Amino acid sequence: MNSDYKATDYKTIEYQVDNKILTLLLNRPEVMNAYTIEMCNELVHAFNRASDDADVSVVVVTGAGRAFCAGMDLSAEGNVFGLDENRTPTLDEMQSFEEMDGVRDSAGKVTLAIYDCKKPVIGAINGAAVGVGATMACAMDIRLASDKARFGFVFTKIGIVPEGCSTWFLPRIVGMQQSLKWMLTGDIFDAAEAYQGGLVLEVCAPDTLLPKAYEMAQKIADNTAPVSVALTRQMLYRNSAAEHPDQAHKVESLAVFYTSQQDGKEGVASFLEKRQANFPAKIATGMPPFFPWW
Amino acid sequence: MNSDYKATDYKTIEYQVDNKILTLLLNRPEVMNAYTIEMCNELVHAFNRASDDADVSVVVVTGAGRAFCAGMDLSAEGNVFGLDENRTPTLDEMQSFEEMDGVRDSAGKVTLAIYDCKKPVIGAINGAAVGVGATMACAMDIRLASDKARFGFVFTKIGIVPEGCSTWFLPRIVGMQQSLKWMLTGDIFDAAEAYQGGLVLEVCAPDTLLPKAYEMAQKIADNTAPVSVALTRQMLYRNSAAEHPDQAHKVESLAVFYTSQQDGKEGVASFLEKRQANFPAKIATGMPPFFPWW
Amino acid sequence: MNSDYKATDYKTIEYQVDNKILTLLLNRPEVMNAYTIEMCNELVHAFNRASDDADVSVVVVTGAGRAFCAGMDLSAEGNVFGLDENRTPTLDEMQSFEEMDGVRDSAGKVTLAIYDCKKPVIGAINGAAVGVGATMACAMDIRLASDKARFGFVFTKIGIVPEGCSTWFLPRIVGMQQSLKWMLTGDIFDAAEAYQGGLVLEVCAPDTLLPKAYEMAQKIADNTAPVSVALTRQMLYRNSAAEHPDQAHKVESLAVFYTSQQDGKEGVASFLEKRQANFPAKIATGMPPFFPWW
Repeated sequence: MNSDYKATDYKTIEYQVDNKILTLLLNRPEVMNAYTIEMCNELVHAFNRASDDADVSVVVVTGAGRAFCAGMDLSAEGNVFGLDENRTPTLDEMQSFEEMDGVRDSAGKVTLAIYDCKKPVIGAINGAAVGVGATMACAMDIRLASDKARFGFVFTKIGIVPEGCSTWFLPRIVGMQQSLKWMLTGDIFDAAEAYQGGLVLEVCAPDTLLPKAYEMAQKIADNTAPVSVALTRQMLYRNSAAEHPDQAHKVESLAVFYTSQQDGKEGVASFLEKRQANFPAKIATGMPPFFPWW
Repeated sequence: MNSDYKATDYKTIEYQVDNKILTLLLNRPEVMNAYTIEMCNELVHAFNRASDDADVSVVVVTGAGRAFCAGMDLSAEGNVFGLDENRTPTLDEMQSFEEMDGVRDSAGKVTLAIYDCKKPVIGAINGAAVGVGATMACAMDIRLASDKARFGFVFTKIGIVPEGCSTWFLPRIVGMQQSLKWMLTGDIFDAAEAYQGGLVLEVCAPDTLLPKAYEMAQKIADNTAPVSVALTRQMLYRNSAAEHPDQAHKVESLAVFYTSQQDGKEGVASFLEKRQANFPAKIATGMPPFFPWW
Repeated sequence: MNSDYKATDYKTIEYQVDNKILTLLLNRPEVMNAYTIEMCNELVHAFNRASDDADVSVVVVTGAGRAFCAGMDLSAEGNVFGLDENRTPTLDEMQSFEEMDGVRDSAGKVTLAIYDCKKPVIGAINGAAVGVGATMACAMDIRLASDKARFGFVFTKIGIVPEGCSTWFLPRIVGMQQSLKWMLTGDIFDAAEAYQGGLVLEVCAPDTLLPKAYEMAQKIADNTAPVSVALTRQMLYRNSAAEHPDQAHKVESLAVFYTSQQDGKEGVASFLEKRQANFPAKIATGMPPFFPWW
């Protein structure tokens, strides 16, 4: 339905591509990039678009101004929880995922789009990441933070519950004890605590945050095979959730076989010849026939 | 069967409620709070009771005297492994969970009661936490430790295996490598190693342990919505164990919708009015119709 | 097929047992112990053999010379990815694990053998552990590293994907963020970063690496019950991957019951008598009737 956005159509975000790196800018600085249903729709569109955009190898998400995303826009009329509340679902609907589109958590729509994205996503957390700002960041692959960043899974403090699939993502990043501490107390915590707890990979001075994020992004974009990266990302999220390693073995066997027939030949040749690789496979045409395998 | 305990009936523990905080005191200081079947039965009763006790918002567990819990009471006649050994199960029974009540691990009865509890559980580990003392602590949401605390998953050293569902809980807290190290060697380790490995969230001087535990408990009790906390706890444990984040999305969507209709309104209003929230929903009447959803 | 190797038959590894500790030496020092299909076959054989070798209580894996294992032998004729490429699998085969033996990732054959092993496996990472050298190490229970060690999940850089079931093992050890960072970038990193990220338990001077590994191995071999160790290892890997702790409770109940009838009696007696335990149960005859329970 929103498949015909143009780059300039977004009202709440910016989509800027430079040298294979997409910067997704949360762009409502006057309200600390507070999240709205409009922002949700634009982010879902943007991540789906980036997934298939041949010009994009890596996505960097950051916020305009001094915040990353300060949470739901509580001044939004009628809907401050990111749900379509025009109607009350029946109990049957509440127990059936497929039919409850009117009450789907909008943060989860964004994080599921990130999860499905064929490009890696790096969060450059420049300031406050609170509520949906914090949960959205949990679905990104890697988080770097400015020492001005603040985090808060504040849901229990405002009488609701964590969203954005954060109850699935956060324990995978920081383990159960730290997840429970942050989510049960609803505490606001600083970048140092986020680093200590394992939520962010690195903390740096504000003016070095974007350079560091772009350096990591560019390294991936320039030195790795896009199909390999897309497959590896899905394999990590999906295989690690399987009960037995033979599920990983199955997918890995197929994926090593398939990639060894295309980019792998160039990878080995360039390695032996000590030169930069020029991987031939493209996301549009080079994903294996068993993708998606789930 | 043990549903008619009174507070004063417990022989091995104390159940003390003050200002919404329940202190569960392991209270056999003359034997370092060694665990018995009686203590198991009293703990299961106490956690089930706390789960529905309207006066309790948070549970703090600690030990009387210098130990937290030094393990099974090896002087207990006949049964030092926490099993009912009056009979030998058949092989069929050993392969069928439902029918083997006579050989159920008693530590697991306690940790499953903690897992099901609607209130957060904070372990204040004041001294030795060995054997069942260590595994019981793994099922608590957050662990704080005195620098006098000692830990030991000593099962392989006495010819048995870890219990209390610890082979499920411990890897979720500290990861596989640290779990394997501690559980295969059976090593005793101090509070510093427990902190370094991620088992405890904080180490402090003995006289600040309970004040810190109560401070955290009071913060949760005073500033968060009980129904939100009960749901968040279950969502973290259960959603994180699902294969795909869409399972979290389903539950989160329902739970955000439901809570936004009750405590969420007060949460947002109090936030906007910069006042303390007074959440209306109670555990007894305010849990959503889809709870339990599993 | 390779069940009749003798100790002296191995061409690429050495199998040396001393005082209940098996040292598996990756032994192609002239090519930094580069991995070949022959090494795969010998390692699978050696881990299966160690699993049932009554003289072996713990396995220590290390590399001859200055490397641990520098990856696939890219000079190997015809097959540099560890796959049997004599034929191209059909799409049906590629979607059916059981029938694709010709395209099974050989690194996964090794790590699944480690996973199934009844003895603990300690990796003593003496130098470069790159590609399959890094992924193989992820399946070991504990990793110690020399400060000369280097690690690299370099797959995306050579146009293929991680193997050896590493997309299942690595996130269990270091969490999702660190796994994604290392596997998406393909970065080479040193022992300090491996320790910081949680991949290795300890970093030490090169000349203390093997002594430390042997000290830990000997402690397990001398002080713990072999059947308890074999069960605990499988319980940790398998129970932690279950959705609900009652799965752990089922297995733990059975295993505590069973072990309490044999080694547990000696374990408690020796503890009370303050003497070294002499556990009677052997792996060959003492595993419970429900093993394997999966």
